[in-house]
Amino acid sequence: MSDVHFDIASLHAAYRDGVGVGDVIATIYARIEAADDPGIFIHLVSKANLLTAAEALGPFDPAAKPLWGIPFAVKDNIDVAGMPTTAACAEYTYWPDEDATVVARLKAAGALVVGKTNLDQFATGLVGVRTPYPIPRNAIDAELVPGGSSSGSAVATARGIVSFALGTDTAGSGRIPAGLNNIVGLKPTVGALSTGGVVPACRTLDCVSVFALTVDDAYAVFSVAAARDAADPYSRDIAVQPLAARPPVLSVGIPAKADLKFFGDVAMQAGFEASLAMLSRLGCRLVEIPFGDFYATANLLYEGAWVAERYAAIRDFMEANEAAMHPVTRKIIGGARKLSAADAFRGLYALQAYRAKLAAVIASVDLFCVPTAPTHYTAAAVLADPVETNSRLGTYTNFVNLLDMCGIAVPTGKRDDGLPMSVTLLAPAGRDVLTAMLARDLHVQSGLSLGATGWPQPNLQPVAAPPCDGMIDLVVVGAHLSGMPLNGQLNQLGAQFLRATKTAAAYRLYALAGQSVPKPGLIRVADGGTRIDVEIWRLEPEAFGRFVAAIPAPLGIGTVELDDGTPAKGFLVETAGLDGASDISSLGGWRRFVARNRDMADQIDQQRNSPDTGGHVAL
Amino acid sequence: MSDVHFDIASLHAAYRDGVGVGDVIATIYARIEAADDPGIFIHLVSKANLLTAAEALGPFDPAAKPLWGIPFAVKDNIDVAGMPTTAACAEYTYWPDEDATVVARLKAAGALVVGKTNLDQFATGLVGVRTPYPIPRNAIDAELVPGGSSSGSAVATARGIVSFALGTDTAGSGRIPAGLNNIVGLKPTVGALSTGGVVPACRTLDCVSVFALTVDDAYAVFSVAAARDAADPYSRDIAVQPLAARPPVLSVGIPAKADLKFFGDVAMQAGFEASLAMLSRLGCRLVEIPFGDFYATANLLYEGAWVAERYAAIRDFMEANEAAMHPVTRKIIGGARKLSAADAFRGLYALQAYRAKLAAVIASVDLFCVPTAPTHYTAAAVLADPVETNSRLGTYTNFVNLLDMCGIAVPTGKRDDGLPMSVTLLAPAGRDVLTAMLARDLHVQSGLSLGATGWPQPNLQPVAAPPCDGMIDLVVVGAHLSGMPLNGQLNQLGAQFLRATKTAAAYRLYALAGQSVPKPGLIRVADGGTRIDVEIWRLEPEAFGRFVAAIPAPLGIGTVELDDGTPAKGFLVETAGLDGASDISSLGGWRRFVARNRDMADQIDQQRNSPDTGGHVAL
Repeated sequence: MSDVHFDIASLHAAYRDGVGVGDVIATIYARIEAADDPGIFIHLVSKANLLTAAEALGPFDPAAKPLWGIPFAVKDNIDVAGMPTTAACAEYTYWPDEDATVVARLKAAGALVVGKTNLDQFATGLVGVRTPYPIPRNAIDAELVPGGSSSGSAVATARGIVSFALGTDTAGSGRIPAGLNNIVGLKPTVGALSTGGVVPACRTLDCVSVFALTVDDAYAVFSVAAARDAADPYSRDIAVQPLAARPPVLSVGIPAKADLKFFGDVAMQAGFEASLAMLSRLGCRLVEIPFGDFYATANLLYEGAWVAERYAAIRDFMEANEAAMHPVTRKIIGGARKLSAADAFRGLYALQAYRAKLAAVIASVDLFCVPTAPTHYTAAAVLADPVETNSRLGTYTNFVNLLDMCGIAVPTGKRDDGLPMSVTLLAPAGRDVLTAMLARDLHVQSGLSLGATGWPQPNLQPVAAPPCDGMIDLVVVGAHLSGMPLNGQLNQLGAQFLRATKTAAAYRLYALAGQSVPKPGLIRVADGGTRIDVEIWRLEPEAFGRFVAAIPAPLGIGTVELDDGTPAKGFLVETAGLDGASDISSLGGWRRFVARNRDMADQIDQQRNSPDTGGHVAL
Repeated sequence: MSDVHFDIASLHAAYRDGVGVGDVIATIYARIEAADDPGIFIHLVSKANLLTAAEALGPFDPAAKPLWGIPFAVKDNIDVAGMPTTAACAEYTYWPDEDATVVARLKAAGALVVGKTNLDQFATGLVGVRTPYPIPRNAIDAELVPGGSSSGSAVATARGIVSFALGTDTAGSGRIPAGLNNIVGLKPTVGALSTGGVVPACRTLDCVSVFALTVDDAYAVFSVAAARDAADPYSRDIAVQPLAARPPVLSVGIPAKADLKFFGDVAMQAGFEASLAMLSRLGCRLVEIPFGDFYATANLLYEGAWVAERYAAIRDFMEANEAAMHPVTRKIIGGARKLSAADAFRGLYALQAYRAKLAAVIASVDLFCVPTAPTHYTAAAVLADPVETNSRLGTYTNFVNLLDMCGIAVPTGKRDDGLPMSVTLLAPAGRDVLTAMLARDLHVQSGLSLGATGWPQPNLQPVAAPPCDGMIDLVVVGAHLSGMPLNGQLNQLGAQFLRATKTAAAYRLYALAGQSVPKPGLIRVADGGTRIDVEIWRLEPEAFGRFVAAIPAPLGIGTVELDDGTPAKGFLVETAGLDGASDISSLGGWRRFVARNRDMADQIDQQRNSPDTGGHVAL
């Protein structure tokens, strides 16, 4: 078979170099045969039909069809017209007339559906063994569970049978299988991808998710698939921002040491510590966060009212066909029968209380990093104790959709025992781009090959500068630099980091006196000026207007000349405000001054971490 | 008894004129006696205790305490420390240690609690007769129901016993009794007023509401009471904007003719048509909207899952004390026992579908106008058919909280038969100020006296000039002054002239060198500063942002201290830009400098008049 690599960059390069789509399709079937795993697909397209679909695309044209000729697999709880939808329960099978909204969007962008993949029945589970079909084998180590519920989609991707695959994620089904198979799992903001044409698990929480070999591929698929959809009342307008340079310093919340759970898996613990060290090397500031309330939120998902959503989704089927269901699934979902409507609302109240309580905690950092899974389990271990092992796997995933966060699971290395190491980056709804930007850097730094294929990571494409139409660039020099106490104000206003640079050699920098939040002042001088480190952030005019209006004396916004001679709006200080200030120009920038001044660094750290002030410090 | 009027403006005027709080308190009790209605209050403060509370306020100081000495009543499902909370069920009684959050805020603003008022038991009902206590009599016509559930609060207000009263509103309990008693009922955005310390009805929908004699009074109380509260996980940050001039033309959605329901009450139909004519005279553009989906949403409230919230709120009590409950209330809430958790989620899904479908409809107009109630009922009619009459009263109220809208019920006249006519203005969450602004105009145009008191409406206080919340004031000092070459830029950005004034005596003004359009530069100095003539213009944040972004060096926007000591954003110049500039501070302003300099005046005149530059001069 052809050895063309299926990450999108490599596959498109191959098409450009003249590889035919027929060769690629032949490769797909050859790889399926080589995998020798009857558990991956529940339904497979015939080679002839796939060729017909490919030929209908016309000549290679990735500009018009960004996913031209890209093969993908679809979890079998997502409709593809002309194929059965089983949700891994043969008796439940129906034949949809229409594609699910996301499938239709991906097809329209040129992607080719290869087949429907196995799952934990009715998407209930994180293990991948709760299926009446053969259990898919973990692509990295056949003894291990593949993870679920999107088991087949993850394995198909990890084996390079497809470039990407769709999963769904309610409790973690789009992240756990990615973590266990050395691939990327993008779990978008709830509602960003339509669930129109998807068999519901918990309709208030369900997400369609994307498995891919690289972060760029996952994000490209996400960008194509995302759109508000009248067919899904829970769909939302989430602005999909292009991948772009991230702020060089990000504050990353991590579970406090005492709250970490690995259930005795020291290799996973060491792997997580190594992943955190990678984040530090990437310029992230790690902030330990007590995790008790996150775990308590997670417990609501299976102990509380949400099981009733799963029951509501299949009530009629279940009442008529209970014996046809997988015994574990039947037991879990059947538990909802004893829950009353009052119980459901009590569950919603409990969630709302945690949401209100955790809002400030979540806003106190830019994003979070958690282990994707706390440990690996063998299929034998899971079959022996199906509920407890499943519950443990969800330690770091179950709270995420309940708290309206987005996330991405990304491989960060191999553990001491050679098994996959993965972390998940989490952020508030709508900040998918931020998690992807940092995940991209982590994956590159890991140097890992892709999934179970042995293929090296492709060269990264340069990212776009943030969109600039009508936007205003702002030069910040002190407390608004990334990682500094007032940087949260920029994030709250939707500002995007553009780049770090220097001013022209025409400025002096002063540490101002009498400020509650330590701040410098930049001033242009006729003679004796020097270059000062600055960052450039981009804002909408309205956000910029609000920002400027909130700046207190003696600071203001004027024109700052940059190192390359271009002017930009930026912070300046009034001469009259320099009373008692110290000239710190020789240090070249505020960051170096803060680093030299331990007391100030401590104060800034405190201001960053306080839920009262993190991101909310008054100017 | 004293005949002092209890609308806040009149009562504060009386205090200012020397009326003592003791006299006012005596008046309260005299009016209670005159009302001769044992159904209004469930608990009444003793005169002695009320006097003690009043004396603790200190001297009359409405600046520090905007509700100084204003008496109010509290619906008896809202806690007041030291008084029993019954929810109109004696067996349910408890004695709270703390005030509900809203009560505490109103007390802190100087308001005085007179007592706890009767209600439809557990706030379940819109009629006011579902109580084991005596039924409060409608203040306008004793044969009619008072409306509910906040019956006693509405009647106490309409009778002038109190200046305002708190109600709660889940299905319409803050609007229906206002409509039936010729007073104003403000139903805030869900979450704007904390429900901390309130006996829940439906926790996901409950609002604390305000009854008052005038719109201004209701809005003043709302403004004091509104705040995010950690004690209520459903509370939200809703920016309370000051009452201000409304846009002169508003589009107002009204139910399409075929969808209007009056259940044969032609007087109400005629009254509603007359109210719409008032809206037209006030400059509103009426837009007929199909109302089927609004009614379908309303039906969810009592036919669907939300009854289970009422049950969840009192489950333990009800299971132990069912016989103690009012028979109608018991039957309604008991209906929740047969609802499953799956039913609850199906109800939530149905609501989400209507929300998604109606979002565009709601956004298509500025606000909505509906009849507050479709008809009036006598108490006898309601007692004869307690459920159907109640259901009909909720025709125009039940959907409002489910769709996250705010509303205000306002009297618009007397019907042909002399009974009260009222409409409710509705708007999306957070637009409380818009509904109040239009309701104020409607009430004034009605010429009605207040409640059942016969008191005329007080003279309206002038409102703040243009809506200023969120707007940004800009101090201009030179080329942007009115009549100067760049002033057109401000006009093009929609800026509004506010006033001419001076800076504090801390600035120097320089005529800058090398400018194509002559410009001065303002700079703050530690010593030797003087006052400089300036103008203040007001802009939207986006316009302000664009304006600031276009200002060239050496000018910028900082903080300028005005003559009265207040700070405002305004033009400053960099010290480095003063090369070659002349200090013109002794002239006191740019205008005088221009007048003295004939060449410059000519140049400016030419720039003003040139079609190439008039209003379009590049900065």
